[in-house]
Amino acid sequence: MKQIKKNENCKKKMEIKLDFKNVMEDSIGSEHGVSNSDIDNIREKIANAHKRVLDGRKSGELGFYQLPYQDKEVSEILDISEDIKNKFDNFVVLGIGGSALGNIALHNALNHKFYNLLPKKDRNDCPRIFFLDNIDPKLIKELIDIIDLKKTVFNVITKSGSTSETIVNFLVFLDLLKSAVGDDWKKHIIITTDPERGDLRKLAEEESIISLSVPLNVGGRYSVLSPVGLLSAAVSGIDINQLLSGAAYMDKLCSSSEFDKNPSFELDKNPAYKSAALLYLEYVKNKKNITVFMPYSNSLIGIADWFSQIWAESLGKKYSLENEVVNTGFTPVSALGTTDQHSQLQLYVQGQYDKVIVFVEVENYNSQIDIPKLYPEFNSFEYLGGKSINQLINLEKQGTEHALVKNNRPNYTIKLPEINAFTIGQLLFIIEVQTVFMGALLNINPLDQPGVEEGKIYVCKKLGRKGY
Amino acid sequence: MKQIKKNENCKKKMEIKLDFKNVMEDSIGSEHGVSNSDIDNIREKIANAHKRVLDGRKSGELGFYQLPYQDKEVSEILDISEDIKNKFDNFVVLGIGGSALGNIALHNALNHKFYNLLPKKDRNDCPRIFFLDNIDPKLIKELIDIIDLKKTVFNVITKSGSTSETIVNFLVFLDLLKSAVGDDWKKHIIITTDPERGDLRKLAEEESIISLSVPLNVGGRYSVLSPVGLLSAAVSGIDINQLLSGAAYMDKLCSSSEFDKNPSFELDKNPAYKSAALLYLEYVKNKKNITVFMPYSNSLIGIADWFSQIWAESLGKKYSLENEVVNTGFTPVSALGTTDQHSQLQLYVQGQYDKVIVFVEVENYNSQIDIPKLYPEFNSFEYLGGKSINQLINLEKQGTEHALVKNNRPNYTIKLPEINAFTIGQLLFIIEVQTVFMGALLNINPLDQPGVEEGKIYVCKKLGRKGY
Repeated sequence: MKQIKKNENCKKKMEIKLDFKNVMEDSIGSEHGVSNSDIDNIREKIANAHKRVLDGRKSGELGFYQLPYQDKEVSEILDISEDIKNKFDNFVVLGIGGSALGNIALHNALNHKFYNLLPKKDRNDCPRIFFLDNIDPKLIKELIDIIDLKKTVFNVITKSGSTSETIVNFLVFLDLLKSAVGDDWKKHIIITTDPERGDLRKLAEEESIISLSVPLNVGGRYSVLSPVGLLSAAVSGIDINQLLSGAAYMDKLCSSSEFDKNPSFELDKNPAYKSAALLYLEYVKNKKNITVFMPYSNSLIGIADWFSQIWAESLGKKYSLENEVVNTGFTPVSALGTTDQHSQLQLYVQGQYDKVIVFVEVENYNSQIDIPKLYPEFNSFEYLGGKSINQLINLEKQGTEHALVKNNRPNYTIKLPEINAFTIGQLLFIIEVQTVFMGALLNINPLDQPGVEEGKIYVCKKLGRKGY
Repeated sequence: MKQIKKNENCKKKMEIKLDFKNVMEDSIGSEHGVSNSDIDNIREKIANAHKRVLDGRKSGELGFYQLPYQDKEVSEILDISEDIKNKFDNFVVLGIGGSALGNIALHNALNHKFYNLLPKKDRNDCPRIFFLDNIDPKLIKELIDIIDLKKTVFNVITKSGSTSETIVNFLVFLDLLKSAVGDDWKKHIIITTDPERGDLRKLAEEESIISLSVPLNVGGRYSVLSPVGLLSAAVSGIDINQLLSGAAYMDKLCSSSEFDKNPSFELDKNPAYKSAALLYLEYVKNKKNITVFMPYSNSLIGIADWFSQIWAESLGKKYSLENEVVNTGFTPVSALGTTDQHSQLQLYVQGQYDKVIVFVEVENYNSQIDIPKLYPEFNSFEYLGGKSINQLINLEKQGTEHALVKNNRPNYTIKLPEINAFTIGQLLFIIEVQTVFMGALLNINPLDQPGVEEGKIYVCKKLGRKGY
């Protein structure tokens, strides 16, 4: 009993927090800010959106809500990953979009920044990890240059089993594997796809290839916490139980349910809904249609790119649920602090008033780097010596925030106590909930992507695919 | 004489071309497209903008125009880089913003995709290359993990000699170097800074450290073709003469001068001006304030990020040249084909009508990858077998273009015959010219960045820097 309590305290200490004050008109004025009465004015919309999300969760339509609670899948994934660690030196993900962005985000967030350059023992004997998420001929050729196929396993990920970019990369490596290892090629492939349908599922069955299933009710861009994202994470030593535990923790934080009774009050208890509601008001009331996601950590660039997909593809829609033409959505922009202070900040401070900046701040970076006092006779060295890099990066974030507020530019901050599997699980999950709730506020379907079909059809026609 | 002619033919074959048809109203309709009479209507503005750019070039204010014609600097850089190759295994750039983005862009464009993982002999005995362009404590700590300081040289780049992020990283490594190699530390540093002023210049002189100069009239974001970008390029084996030759070639292509006589006609002879004029019309007439830069090549992601800086920081301005409040500028977005077809395309096709998509297409990828015919019984494999990856990636770009045009979304294409130092030199230079010409059309100063000062002042105050 004491153990559990302590555990809950640890979790509480690792809870991510959101600070919305710089979106509010008290901070940045009424022309660009949001007021409490603005929120009250959409209380009915919020209550309805909540009802829709809740219905989607109950019906199983919003399948990602179930992912934090997988048990069978996790132990299966851990078994496979142990086996891989013993047998292979390279693990290559073949996937694109939702079948790669989450994998890259987790690797970038939780592994060593120069993971593939480390000696094997410093990677805890885990294999090197590569993500092939394009069909650039030079990239493919140069990946072939550096991997020994005899020591390489490929995780082919496509839910439909037919994504052309993934299939062609698979065919190229399948052919090479057959030459390199003969009949053993099957041991070098793991297929992650639909549990029943599609050509890859058929192939896995016919050839007895190890496979994992993407749940039927989880679409690509919501699949990071499914076997899609979990296998490559486990293979590189990421604690996937902690990741899911973080997601479950955030699920609890975002499950207030009294919106029909007291919406504004309840909103404060649901950080995912609150950020969606504020971004929605900034959009419809203040015309801020660009969302800049700007972590102050190189470990979160991958999450910014993953956010860009879920935000763009879920919400950028032509039609409302009632089939009216709305052409709605937000343009996401990935930025990185402090780096992009020297690239994008000038625009954010002085350009058009069309953005909300979402900062991600890290309180404890795990490593502490002190700045030595050298050449104090130089004015531009002197004030820095004796401080720490950790202090400086957080101060720079405050400086950026200060400049934005002074110029009435809305921004808010997601605070991570530190970067670990538990906090990253929370961060991914809050963004998923925020996205489907925003879909409900915008009255569009956040689960489809009809706009990408035209291009696909064009390509299939040109290549003479049957049925096109 | 024959030699020169042949050379000119080779250059002509490597000329990059721009195709603007999908910005024009014939392609995408008058609501979102531009017509020839729209161009005619701003002929005076174009002529004036040209005059301003020409004046800036003549007065030396636009110093980047002189960079393709450096001779002394190039031979100095090649000497230093030969020396480095003989002595070191790692070359680390310490810089941020304009002192890193160009370096990263060149490395990403012209070197092996897994350069640092190659055995040294496959890098032509060049050192591994690292770019430290942030003050993330984890990143710094993990860079320290993987480099042997005894075999590492640091190129510290900051024009002012006082950029805080670069200075603190320098101080950290300076201290480590002193412990690791004692008095030899000076041989492990190369300083790139202002020719006369600043603390780093003083340090270089006092300690007799090898140094290079950033020309006085070249600002950070226009400095890729100066010693800022050229040293790390040369050290990794990039042909910097070809790079400058490409820039010089583009300079010639963009130097029509008869705008007061026949603007529309002359515009067709100046691709940099033409793209700026069309993007300007899309902005003022059709409210497209987002510029998506979307190469179909993983080798050009770095250029997309470099473009994002020059485009955002040069044009995102509060005041016009007459000090009126204008809050103007474009939000740049980096995207990657085909990858972002599975992430951003849905939004580009169906979201708000606020974007122009700039494609970069590569005609010849140097590597040819054929798709094997395997499992033809599967419909989703069959139509791909026997084709090539090269064919597929270009077809996908056409498919995306097709979907955009069908939905009246403006886009244009920059075509690179292939990716090499000569074409990359052209690409960088055309973007620089396009940017300053756009600055003139918008009537703002494309060379300053007053909006980033407030944040800097805040940080200096908090740290107790003298004079703040």
